[in-house]
Amino acid sequence: MKKIISQATIDRLPLYFRTLRLAEEEELPIISSDELGRRLDITPEQIRKDLATFGQFGRKGIGYDVRELKNRIGNILGLQNNWRLAIVGIGHLGGALANYVNFSSLGFSVVALLDKNEKIIGSEVNGIKVNDSARMNEVVAEKSVDIGVITVPAGEAQSVAEQLIAAGIKGIWNFAPIKLNVPPTVPLVNEDLSVGLSALSYHMSQK
Amino acid sequence: MKKIISQATIDRLPLYFRTLRLAEEEELPIISSDELGRRLDITPEQIRKDLATFGQFGRKGIGYDVRELKNRIGNILGLQNNWRLAIVGIGHLGGALANYVNFSSLGFSVVALLDKNEKIIGSEVNGIKVNDSARMNEVVAEKSVDIGVITVPAGEAQSVAEQLIAAGIKGIWNFAPIKLNVPPTVPLVNEDLSVGLSALSYHMSQK
Repeated sequence: MKKIISQATIDRLPLYFRTLRLAEEEELPIISSDELGRRLDITPEQIRKDLATFGQFGRKGIGYDVRELKNRIGNILGLQNNWRLAIVGIGHLGGALANYVNFSSLGFSVVALLDKNEKIIGSEVNGIKVNDSARMNEVVAEKSVDIGVITVPAGEAQSVAEQLIAAGIKGIWNFAPIKLNVPPTVPLVNEDLSVGLSALSYHMSQK
Repeated sequence: MKKIISQATIDRLPLYFRTLRLAEEEELPIISSDELGRRLDITPEQIRKDLATFGQFGRKGIGYDVRELKNRIGNILGLQNNWRLAIVGIGHLGGALANYVNFSSLGFSVVALLDKNEKIIGSEVNGIKVNDSARMNEVVAEKSVDIGVITVPAGEAQSVAEQLIAAGIKGIWNFAPIKLNVPPTVPLVNEDLSVGLSALSYHMSQK
């Protein structure tokens, strides 16, 4: 039976995962909800409540086994699927994402790059050749792409999303600052880098 | 008197701002909490509660004036400060951020680029010359930099953060996948692109 998990809890899981991964790199064997809370600026009560949603973790008065908790959360997040990414739009941001090392350490791999600009097609980024986005269907099938990453300008994003869905991808990660219309069967996450910057602005304004 | 606002509410404000900005571009004059909720996947009750924290917005049964609400939230977020950014580490990600158009539409401007690599120093990105990061103090003062953006490798990030703070910046936006130690007087926001990707993975795993 699947439990209903609130969106807010789901949004915190990647933060927990990230913090546990850093703790694992520091070779910390055990972490308390107090320490996790301190690192994440989330109350320990909230953390215990979130983690209890997924079953019994940790031991009272001792804390959580860092590696075990990290692996459990990784499985809940579906990271064991080793999703395969295609980036569409190899400008500055697309190129930066093709080189972003953090993805591979989470099990994601960038397997295809697509662009419509003839000057970019055929060039290589991080060892991957840029394909013509007109060949999207073939490339998605050949490379077994799961996730389409959209880094084209806003005006082109909806049409690229539709091409990706027609080509058979299972999820979309959108960096274009526009609301995409996609069928509910295709999960969509919008990334806007200005959200984090705005939060920083808020904290600076309170000083 | 300053009200205490929960971290979770603060985290949602940039999302409200972004959605209202898109609605304004669509020339929508009024938006209901139902419609805002639909666009953001947040309950209308949560939205009404969040916005009530900041005073009286909107009219019952009609909705919120898009432009007015956007401007009010922009002010709460401190966007009217027109913060000035310096990016340290002009690799792929730093270069992409230097070109990211969304920042300027929010009132942020990138005014300085710094790197320690002699091959990069002196080159131009988006019309801005890359300075030697050894000249950080001078550049931060000359260009009145408010925010330091860290896009150097993880191993260099703590030392860059300390240099930025010594040079007098007021806030740090960190892209290096490492926990930085900074004094509580310097607001810090960590950005990890793999957080959004992990959330997408979760939603794809539920299918």
